[in-house]
This record gives sequence, C-alpha cells and structure tokens, in this order.
Amino acid sequence: MNVTIGRRTRHYRTVAFDSRKNAVRLIDQRLLPHQFQIVATGNFQETARAIHEMIVRGAGAIGATAAYGLAQGVRSFRGRDLEKLSLHVDSVYQTLQAARPTAVDPVNAMNEVRSRMSQGKTVAEQRALALTAAQEFANDDVRHCEAIGRQGGPLIQEGMRILTHCNAGWLAFVDVGTATAPLYAAQAEGRKFHVFCDETRPRSQGATLTAWELAQQGIDHEVIADNAAGYLIQRNEIDLIIVGSDRTLGRTGEVTNKIGTYTKAVLAERHNIPFFVAIPFSTIDWKLSSGRDIPIEERDESEVLGAWGAVALSRFRGSGPRFGRRVYVRVANPTSGARNPGFDVTPAELITGIITPAGIFKPKELWANRRKLGFKD
Amino acid sequence: MNVTIGRRTRHYRTVAFDSRKNAVRLIDQRLLPHQFQIVATGNFQETARAIHEMIVRGAGAIGATAAYGLAQGVRSFRGRDLEKLSLHVDSVYQTLQAARPTAVDPVNAMNEVRSRMSQGKTVAEQRALALTAAQEFANDDVRHCEAIGRQGGPLIQEGMRILTHCNAGWLAFVDVGTATAPLYAAQAEGRKFHVFCDETRPRSQGATLTAWELAQQGIDHEVIADNAAGYLIQRNEIDLIIVGSDRTLGRTGEVTNKIGTYTKAVLAERHNIPFFVAIPFSTIDWKLSSGRDIPIEERDESEVLGAWGAVALSRFRGSGPRFGRRVYVRVANPTSGARNPGFDVTPAELITGIITPAGIFKPKELWANRRKLGFKD
Repeated sequence: MNVTIGRRTRHYRTVAFDSRKNAVRLIDQRLLPHQFQIVATGNFQETARAIHEMIVRGAGAIGATAAYGLAQGVRSFRGRDLEKLSLHVDSVYQTLQAARPTAVDPVNAMNEVRSRMSQGKTVAEQRALALTAAQEFANDDVRHCEAIGRQGGPLIQEGMRILTHCNAGWLAFVDVGTATAPLYAAQAEGRKFHVFCDETRPRSQGATLTAWELAQQGIDHEVIADNAAGYLIQRNEIDLIIVGSDRTLGRTGEVTNKIGTYTKAVLAERHNIPFFVAIPFSTIDWKLSSGRDIPIEERDESEVLGAWGAVALSRFRGSGPRFGRRVYVRVANPTSGARNPGFDVTPAELITGIITPAGIFKPKELWANRRKLGFKD
Repeated sequence: MNVTIGRRTRHYRTVAFDSRKNAVRLIDQRLLPHQFQIVATGNFQETARAIHEMIVRGAGAIGATAAYGLAQGVRSFRGRDLEKLSLHVDSVYQTLQAARPTAVDPVNAMNEVRSRMSQGKTVAEQRALALTAAQEFANDDVRHCEAIGRQGGPLIQEGMRILTHCNAGWLAFVDVGTATAPLYAAQAEGRKFHVFCDETRPRSQGATLTAWELAQQGIDHEVIADNAAGYLIQRNEIDLIIVGSDRTLGRTGEVTNKIGTYTKAVLAERHNIPFFVAIPFSTIDWKLSSGRDIPIEERDESEVLGAWGAVALSRFRGSGPRFGRRVYVRVANPTSGARNPGFDVTPAELITGIITPAGIFKPKELWANRRKLGFKD
C-alpha cells in the first residue's frame, strides 16, 4: 500500500526481495507507528532473526518472508552438487522454521518453494526456481487479499461505522491485508465510512499498526480502548465488525484470533450487529475437529504489566506533539503478576460470515465448500 | 488498610485529618503503584487542588476530602462574627465543589457538614462542630464499607476465582472499599481465593490501584488485559464478578460504572456467572428514571492514545526489576485520534445482585427497599 514520508508517497509491500543484493526487504514493524524504516537482511540467518524478533509479524507476511528466506539461502549456495544443495536447504529450512515454531504459514510457504525448486535439474535451475516460487507465493498472497476485498467490499456501505480488532491489515500480509481488504476496496469505489480501531491490549496492534495503516491510506478512523467497544455497540454506533483470524477450523467454523475477539462477537450477537471474519485459504485448518484442541499460547506477562511507546518530547517547538525514543514502561503494580493468553476461540454460531477469496460463507459451510477453499486430500 | 513500606506495616486511611496542623492528609494516588507518599494540604485551596489534580479520587474518598476541606476552611477563620463566617464558608464550599464539578459525593458531604455546624451558636462552637461532622462523615464511609463486607463476604467461598474491574477498593473510599470489601471480609475469615484484576484501560486503575491494594493485603491475584476476561470466563476460570458503581439508579437498578463494565456483564450472562455490584448508599441516584439520562463523560483522548508508567531501570543490580521515574508514552499512531467514553451503563437484567450496607438486593428491588437504603423524601 502507499506510505507517505514527508511529502513523498511510495508504494511498499510489507515483504519484498532485492534479487541484485540477495536481500529480503522488510518494513520494521517494531518501530511503527513512530518510525518507518526498511530493514534488508543480508543472509537467511538474518532473515530468520527478523522473523524471531518480530521485525515482521502476521500470518501472510511471515509466510512470504520464510519463502524469500529459503530462496535467499539457496541463492547463497556456492557449488554444483545437487546433494550438497539439498543438505544446505534442509539447514536453511530448519533455521527459518525455528524462528517462529508454532506458526503454520512459514512451513506451508517453504514446502511450496522446496517442492517447486526440486523440479530443477541443475543447481542453477534450482536457484532460479526457488526465487520464482517465492515471488509467486508473495504474489498469490496479494492476489488472495485483493480477492477478499472484492468479496467483502460490498459489505461496506456509505456512512457505515466499522469496528476492527488487532491488525489483519497489509502489514500482516504482503499487501492489502484481510480484515482491511474490504475497507480498501470500498474506499477505492469512493465510499466514505468510519473505522473504530480496538486498541487491542496487551500488544496494542490496533492502536499502533491498524491506526497507522488507515492514517496512511486516508481512511477516517479513531482508536478506542477495548473496554469502549461494548458502549459504542450498545449506543448503536457500530454497524459492522470485521476481524482477521490466525486459524479457522474448516470442519467446525470456529475462529481463533487475537485475544478479545470472542468478547466482540458476544457483544455483536446481543445487539444484532453483523460479525465477519476475513481469511485467506492459508489460515484454514482442515484437520482439527474441535476448537478445544487449538493450543492457546500464553505469552510473557510483561506485555500485560506494561506498555511500549514513545516518550513525549516536552521541548518540541512546532505544531502538535512530537515523540522521541521508544521505551517500555511498567504500568501495573511492580509486585503483581499477570495472565496473558494470546488468542481466543469464537464459536461458529456467533459469526455472520467468513469472507474468503472464493466468496463469503457461513462458518458451517466451509467444509462443504472445501474444494473451492484450497482443501487438498 | 495496612501498607508495608520496607519492613514496616502501618494502617492508613486514604483520607485523614491532622487537627493539630489543620491539614488534610491524603495518599497521593497519582504516584501509586510505584511510590507511596502522603500529601498534607495546608489550607482548603490546596485541598481543592488535590481533588482537582486527582491526588485523591473515588466517590467516597473525594466526599470525605471535601468534608475535611470544609472543616479545614472553617477552622482557618479568624474572628467572632457568625455572618462573616457564613460568607467564608460559602466561598470554601464553592472552591471545593468546583474542583470536581460533576461529582455528587463532595456536595452531599459538604451539605452534611454545613447543616451540622449551623447548630453551633458561636464561631468556636461552629468550628468544633464542622470538624466533628467531617470526622463522622469519614467514619460513616468506613462503617458502610465494612457493612458491605459483612453482607458480601459470604459470597466469596474457598478457592473461588473472582474478576474485578477498575478500582472500587479502599483507595476509592476512606478505607475498606466497596467491591473489595467482600474480599477483605472473606480473607479475615481465613478463606483463600484468587482475584483477576482487569487492567481497566485507558487509565489502568485495575493494574495500578487494585493490584497494589491486593498485593498490600496479601490477596492472591493476577492482572489481565481487559480482552482476556472473555477467554477466562469461556474456559470456566471465573466463578464470580464484583464491581463498584459511580451511580446506580434506585428506580431502575441500572448501574453506571467504569467503561468496560457492561461488557463483563454481557459475558457473565452468557456463561451464567454471578455478577454483583457493591455500592454504598451515597452512590444511589433516586431521581433519574432511565439510564439513558445519565450523562457519560467523554474524557481526553490522550488517555487512550498512550499510557503512564515507570521507566525500567536497566542498570538496577538486585533481585527483580526496578523502576524509575513515571512518564507518559505515546502508544498509538501519532496522527490518529481517539474516542474515550469514561463510563457505561449496565441494565438491571444483567445484574445478579447489588451488595449494599443494608443487604443484597435484586436491582429492581432497590426502590421497594428505599427507606433501608437511605432514601429521603
């Protein structure tokens, strides 16, 4: 999407590849929204570290990063021995997978790259095929998000007020995003609407990433505390809710997403507000048959007990506030601990529809439509 | 309640009066949980400023502070002319009321002090009566909270896991608190239980004040992001919810409380979790006949867009983390704005019971029991 720095507007992808320098180029998401900076990783080890340190995060974005990282590793191989290349690829694969061991997207992405490159008959051919496969994986990610926009765009009508949770925007994918895709599609068709971004504690991806994205694209929005969503819904100030998903069960329609999603779905049901989930094919889990089997990550308590932000510069002379270096501050009582589940599971009956690149489905209809949705036996 | 600093444990009230120095002594709540400091206001103007700057906050606490501030102002009067004293009292009253113009507790407290002192026949008698009345107001606040503890304590059974929201603890009153009173009563009877403190964004009173209080009293607790409550409720990890209230409508049983309370009540209903509200008589509004008539304060957007906390001291050598000066950090995208409603209204049908000093009532039974609950024609 477009990013404006100073007076210059340029199109960026979250993840891109510089084939001349054999480098993966990433928007450093740890510095957003206070600083926009591109990081170029010089080798696959650095790419793995970028995934691990969350310079890049989000299902589609880390998938594409791992695909490029594998191609990068292959392209750094010197020699003509296909067997040695294969051993090298195993090591690159393992390094990249270990960077975020529970995520499913990097694995799927790298399997695709590896399977494509194996069709090459020489090292040179395999090297070329690896990059082509990684590029295609990234392009497919963009195409799927654009298709979600076409499917979901008509839901966003003139003047609507839409609630989002967390960030399933273009920063979480290669471009366009999933939950944001219908918004960008509606904007492209000239419709005006207002987005409320749930802050999304404890990591505040709504206040930092989604708000930054929407500001960059010129979409009217406001940040709210997660606590305020119920109030706005109660007062008829929300017309529609759209969220993303980290894992949707194809057999049951249950949706795993950032902690707090379930609460919004419960509020939506009580007040008859449409609640949609936007997903690419890659996040559908066709194996599990119950949401209770989804492992829920318990994250570090420091996320709940404090916050990352930029210190206000009191001496700034100019219009509006300006902010300095990013620091972690301890908000909570220093002698207290915290629980920090990262995700929750929303049952199918609370979900109005699931927006996919292949159409909008009721959660319980995913299984019947599994062929359209990329299910492979 | 007891506060331990270093190895010394002492009993403190949130608000107290030093009659020798004619000073109101307050726990500086802006510095908690990172620093415990008592502020002594030397005159009524300083007391008004302490209310305005939120050194003291919470319904009962600011009521008692205003009562003491009025007595403090009366006691600083020099002369024997009762009419001049009366004019002086008007000015003190107005100064203290203007410090938090929408709050109802300071007005009720000061009216009580003024009505009692007017029975004095000389300036000296009126001065003495003003202080006696203020002391009694503060003591009544404590007695009412203790009575809430006696009424609500039996709800807290061995091993229960209780969710709280915001701070309706002893820091919000003169001592004991309302939502916390049943917890302290159950603890005094030797029962063990676990409290989950909703962080309560945007001002984080749960993470700062309630967590600090519970830590000081040795009650087992953990802070959670507001988003995590739904997850814990869904997984049967919450047995009971208790919150306070800023204004409860005596005619309808609707409860105004910190933003986010409504959401917890909706979740509680869906999962059949008892949802209790603990209130003293002073927060019952006997006039309004609909929750829609309750004005909801929209607060400054900076609260949502950032957070206050203490900077971690990376050079600290010792056990555990230590924290330095308190700063405001901007969390959200710098070019985004926010909506910040401070309160929401929970309808009577979502509330299991209202714990008062005179018993536990169904919300709709408040009106029928209005004589017991302090209603005056």
